[in-house]
Amino acid sequence: MRILVVNPNTTRSMTDKAAEAARAVAGAGTQIMAATSQMGPASIEGHYDGALALPGLLAEIRAGEKAGAQAAVIACFDDTGLDAARALAGIPVLGLCESALVTAGFLAQRFTVVTTLERSRVLLENLTRHYGFGGRAKVRAADIPVLELEDEHSGAIGKLRRQIELALQEDGAEAIVLGCAGMADLAFALQEDYGVPVIDGVSAAVKQAEALIAQRLTTSKRGSYATPLAKVYLGAMAGFAPRDK
Amino acid sequence: MRILVVNPNTTRSMTDKAAEAARAVAGAGTQIMAATSQMGPASIEGHYDGALALPGLLAEIRAGEKAGAQAAVIACFDDTGLDAARALAGIPVLGLCESALVTAGFLAQRFTVVTTLERSRVLLENLTRHYGFGGRAKVRAADIPVLELEDEHSGAIGKLRRQIELALQEDGAEAIVLGCAGMADLAFALQEDYGVPVIDGVSAAVKQAEALIAQRLTTSKRGSYATPLAKVYLGAMAGFAPRDK
Amino acid sequence: MRILVVNPNTTRSMTDKAAEAARAVAGAGTQIMAATSQMGPASIEGHYDGALALPGLLAEIRAGEKAGAQAAVIACFDDTGLDAARALAGIPVLGLCESALVTAGFLAQRFTVVTTLERSRVLLENLTRHYGFGGRAKVRAADIPVLELEDEHSGAIGKLRRQIELALQEDGAEAIVLGCAGMADLAFALQEDYGVPVIDGVSAAVKQAEALIAQRLTTSKRGSYATPLAKVYLGAMAGFAPRDK
Amino acid sequence: MRILVVNPNTTRSMTDKAAEAARAVAGAGTQIMAATSQMGPASIEGHYDGALALPGLLAEIRAGEKAGAQAAVIACFDDTGLDAARALAGIPVLGLCESALVTAGFLAQRFTVVTTLERSRVLLENLTRHYGFGGRAKVRAADIPVLELEDEHSGAIGKLRRQIELALQEDGAEAIVLGCAGMADLAFALQEDYGVPVIDGVSAAVKQAEALIAQRLTTSKRGSYATPLAKVYLGAMAGFAPRDK
Amino acid sequence: MRILVVNPNTTRSMTDKAAEAARAVAGAGTQIMAATSQMGPASIEGHYDGALALPGLLAEIRAGEKAGAQAAVIACFDDTGLDAARALAGIPVLGLCESALVTAGFLAQRFTVVTTLERSRVLLENLTRHYGFGGRAKVRAADIPVLELEDEHSGAIGKLRRQIELALQEDGAEAIVLGCAGMADLAFALQEDYGVPVIDGVSAAVKQAEALIAQRLTTSKRGSYATPLAKVYLGAMAGFAPRDK
Amino acid sequence: MRILVVNPNTTRSMTDKAAEAARAVAGAGTQIMAATSQMGPASIEGHYDGALALPGLLAEIRAGEKAGAQAAVIACFDDTGLDAARALAGIPVLGLCESALVTAGFLAQRFTVVTTLERSRVLLENLTRHYGFGGRAKVRAADIPVLELEDEHSGAIGKLRRQIELALQEDGAEAIVLGCAGMADLAFALQEDYGVPVIDGVSAAVKQAEALIAQRLTTSKRGSYATPLAKVYLGAMAGFAPRDK
Repeated sequence: MRILVVNPNTTRSMTDKAAEAARAVAGAGTQIMAATSQMGPASIEGHYDGALALPGLLAEIRAGEKAGAQAAVIACFDDTGLDAARALAGIPVLGLCESALVTAGFLAQRFTVVTTLERSRVLLENLTRHYGFGGRAKVRAADIPVLELEDEHSGAIGKLRRQIELALQEDGAEAIVLGCAGMADLAFALQEDYGVPVIDGVSAAVKQAEALIAQRLTTSKRGSYATPLAKVYLGAMAGFAPRDK
Repeated sequence: MRILVVNPNTTRSMTDKAAEAARAVAGAGTQIMAATSQMGPASIEGHYDGALALPGLLAEIRAGEKAGAQAAVIACFDDTGLDAARALAGIPVLGLCESALVTAGFLAQRFTVVTTLERSRVLLENLTRHYGFGGRAKVRAADIPVLELEDEHSGAIGKLRRQIELALQEDGAEAIVLGCAGMADLAFALQEDYGVPVIDGVSAAVKQAEALIAQRLTTSKRGSYATPLAKVYLGAMAGFAPRDK
Repeated sequence: MRILVVNPNTTRSMTDKAAEAARAVAGAGTQIMAATSQMGPASIEGHYDGALALPGLLAEIRAGEKAGAQAAVIACFDDTGLDAARALAGIPVLGLCESALVTAGFLAQRFTVVTTLERSRVLLENLTRHYGFGGRAKVRAADIPVLELEDEHSGAIGKLRRQIELALQEDGAEAIVLGCAGMADLAFALQEDYGVPVIDGVSAAVKQAEALIAQRLTTSKRGSYATPLAKVYLGAMAGFAPRDK
Repeated sequence: MRILVVNPNTTRSMTDKAAEAARAVAGAGTQIMAATSQMGPASIEGHYDGALALPGLLAEIRAGEKAGAQAAVIACFDDTGLDAARALAGIPVLGLCESALVTAGFLAQRFTVVTTLERSRVLLENLTRHYGFGGRAKVRAADIPVLELEDEHSGAIGKLRRQIELALQEDGAEAIVLGCAGMADLAFALQEDYGVPVIDGVSAAVKQAEALIAQRLTTSKRGSYATPLAKVYLGAMAGFAPRDK
Repeated sequence: MRILVVNPNTTRSMTDKAAEAARAVAGAGTQIMAATSQMGPASIEGHYDGALALPGLLAEIRAGEKAGAQAAVIACFDDTGLDAARALAGIPVLGLCESALVTAGFLAQRFTVVTTLERSRVLLENLTRHYGFGGRAKVRAADIPVLELEDEHSGAIGKLRRQIELALQEDGAEAIVLGCAGMADLAFALQEDYGVPVIDGVSAAVKQAEALIAQRLTTSKRGSYATPLAKVYLGAMAGFAPRDK
Repeated sequence: MRILVVNPNTTRSMTDKAAEAARAVAGAGTQIMAATSQMGPASIEGHYDGALALPGLLAEIRAGEKAGAQAAVIACFDDTGLDAARALAGIPVLGLCESALVTAGFLAQRFTVVTTLERSRVLLENLTRHYGFGGRAKVRAADIPVLELEDEHSGAIGKLRRQIELALQEDGAEAIVLGCAGMADLAFALQEDYGVPVIDGVSAAVKQAEALIAQRLTTSKRGSYATPLAKVYLGAMAGFAPRDK
């Protein structure tokens, strides 16, 4: 199996971390194809960054499918561009948030997502509701700029631990979901320390990708995710115009 | 008052129609500034078109605010890019779907949105839920490609009328919401014919824009819509990078 | 435009305050017609007062429409009698709570309503759910009897500020809604002080009334708000009996 | 036990029918005190009638409590004035809709309420949601003016049967709730005919009243239903003013 | 009337306590038939105990119906086996949780369930949502093993009181529901002490049973609770096989 | 990896079919351990069969874990005993319904579950809501007794196809979920015929089991699924008593 992992921001070190997490859980026969967006923000913090990350993300999805990927993972916990990528691609596309929430749902009745910045908290609350976990998942922000996760001296991990502890004490959390692709390397150690399941979205999404490929399932092209209709796109977006088949 | 109406697709005739609808309802002292996206799809039909319309849309929002607009309306019923625009702009930003739903909500307990293509139906159902109207609003698709609304010989209006009639008979609709900016010119005639309120999103959004300006209210910059953090954007998106103030 | 603002309690100073707030935001061509209920409670604090305020309220709505009002605003945050008034009147009728919530919804993802007494808190929570804002709006009571808002030495404003501060700290509120018509004069100063949008229901409702008039929209008479059927009313209510047209 | 059954409309024959239904199910030691509103509409059809029925209803609740009633039933399926009556009275107050829904909920997972007029359908849908049965109960209107239920030649029963049959065929209804106090005499025969539980609200509410009395439970006076605060009421409502204890 | 009260655990002292509570509220003509499960756990604490209590519970329901019971109450607050018992029996079957929640719902808008162990808290939260009280009821666990309620020196009552006090202070509870059959003897004293309604599930369910019998209502056999189809059961469960009628 | 697939009914041919489906999608290194319940019903059709299947199911889960299984799948679409099994086992436990719904959720916005008998339809509707798919998934019953799926001449497949066609035409289904373990062999052919994803629960659950093992995740023992407390179990259930560790 060949699974594409796209980092929709332009920071290569985050791509590397996601690819490493992906390879750590992938099956013996799975090849992880890692790609970094070539245009857009260096990190995705809030709605504006998310919107401008889309062209770069969709370009990588399209290129990866052409290069033989059988499924794609968007390595951002906001599930940026997930619906658009599903409409575009003939292969299944997985998001980190959706994958992590359903994984947590198999293990616990109540859990907490710990994310980076306050500006992403409500965005993720809305996502958890959209995915049907509104009554089961709480969301906490640890006040960590995304790129501080790349710097081991930033104090970011201490802030993250503090929110996990509050989730266990105050939220009645039975499991923890790490709400940023940049936390992928921390899941197993935190799970050992706190004695509850700690779910990383990259790992969860890669296993869902394998599961779909093995079941010969792909995105429905009936209704919501129908193939984009051929039409003219102008200006800097001209290259993205869908063509007739 | 100066209100920007941005058409997030690149079809100028749709901009003209939206501007005309806007001017028809605007207050005496309101100036409508109409803008057409310079990059992206010729019409927005589904998630993929919507994603690639974002850079062009956000560029016009930014330019319009700089040119003195006091509020902005995104003239697409999918509310494409609404959250990102609210984060970007210092002025309030209105979407057609949200504005039309709340307007209908003042007039009727149950109503039906009639949109263009099946691929947009579930997208709008999800929006109605997000805005809190899940239990009150149904969504119907009339099987009309968006640009056929620009051609009076396309039969589009007949299809639209058919769905309105079904909404009244089968959904118990007490009002009708027109689910595409390209239907803005039809609202009043349909209201006369069917004897129930028929709401056009462009008109609704322009009046909401005026209402917010008059109340000296603008988007909260606390939490979800905080001003984008300064950072590097690469490639074709470099020009969109937020700067420190 | 002529917009009726009805105070459904019998305290004239509250009518004056509401009328002042209405005039401060109304368009140049809008005339505010203020009316005070002639029968019922001096303030509306809970379900019982609300029920007995209805005849006086509906009498003023009927009189106002006959006197040429093109829309009516019920100047009580409980939206007392809103459904009955919509059934009665041929003109659109706006409530403060509904108008303020949708206004806040354009500016913020999460917000808090601060109202007067604990007995109104759950009533307003139920209203926020009915209007579809259950997942977005919290409600706090400041322990202020309504008429203390008319007395600047009562300490009421200090209690109100305390709850706003708690909303910002504990609720993650991105905006504040003032949950009583008697707070209409405070909104702008509080907005300046706290740096988040502060929404007053009277102002919001007046602008919605103008918006509906400009769009030539009025309450649907199909279904929920159908014109009352002609029938006999007995006793003190005899004068309210609907007549055949 | 003494249970007050108040008909909030002024039609005595409906009071008699409700009292008969109440006595048919009441326990051996229960005395049914029937009262008819002395002011207000002859039938309650929609929001406007419901609003103007409140003073007459509340007067009877107050008088009944003074006369020794230990619980009160409001014999209208709209649960008109239920919250206000609970705030007013020291004794528990039951509504037909709430009582019938919870009774149906003990017997069936899914059921349908059949009511009179289309204008009451959405009102009852909203009530079913408010009481937590939104996902379990459907509402159908049989197009019967309320007072036609008092006339055996009106064809009303045929229309009612037609909707019950549709509920069984199309809604998957496992039980039927009769959505008008004026249908109280029909429940048992319809149950025999259709072989599913058919619930009458008057009967259900009377048994709930007995249940609460036996458990020595009454309305909480903490929060939502706190005793009305003493204050001045003006005009025709002066007699309803709450007094200090 | 003859009402069966089944204790689905095997601890006779809890059966005695439930029977006593039942008799304290039952009508003059009601006979309480108490039964204790003969196989399964000594107390039901969490999902596993609940699952293994089912055969013993269902055996008692079947035997009780054969012995002439006209309704059955399952004396466990988890409503263990309620759906299965309803499918099995021709008589109505009541659960404590459902009965107590609807009883509280007649008395208060918001209330709190206080249960025993943390492992039952989310289970009861899910039940409150299933019954439609998700927005009205909170659940607290007092950290009391069920059988400690049988020992007056265990300190259990102090822990229970502590949670009631927190419910009043922090949850805005207007009433309290006791979330364990083993608390049935405490309700009235706690109600006196705290001045809010305190609902015991055994009492509530017995009165609901009487109410259904008086209304000649029983479980619908259409759909969800259809009579089990005749089939072979193997092994230790062979005796439970449904037979053709 | 060693994954236990337990058929909670006693029909060996259904176990074989489930095991075959499991092996068809399992990874190269995965061993499927199939087990058939030794006590309980020959098929699970409704709540009563489901309740009596629990001891046999839990016995196989316990035996399978002892025999070295690293995860368990309960091969019944009702997710019978899932919560109890999760509390019991130290290994993760998957249900068919939950696994299939989340799988469908990655591929489609709206989908329909087609199950066997009407008595299971509402049960599955309630499950879809519990798992957060209430707004996305419809449920249809094909009127097929479970064991007819084992007989190719029963006409069962025709009935199933008929409901799939109605789901596509009337529900706007973008994908189909097969709502019975006995349909596991049909998924791929139906997917080919109808051109939309067709999800089989056994396949979906096996892949979820592999995914959890690969991520070193297991059921949280904090809160809802805490290890059963040691206590006495009486009678035929004595062997199930939890012991102290």
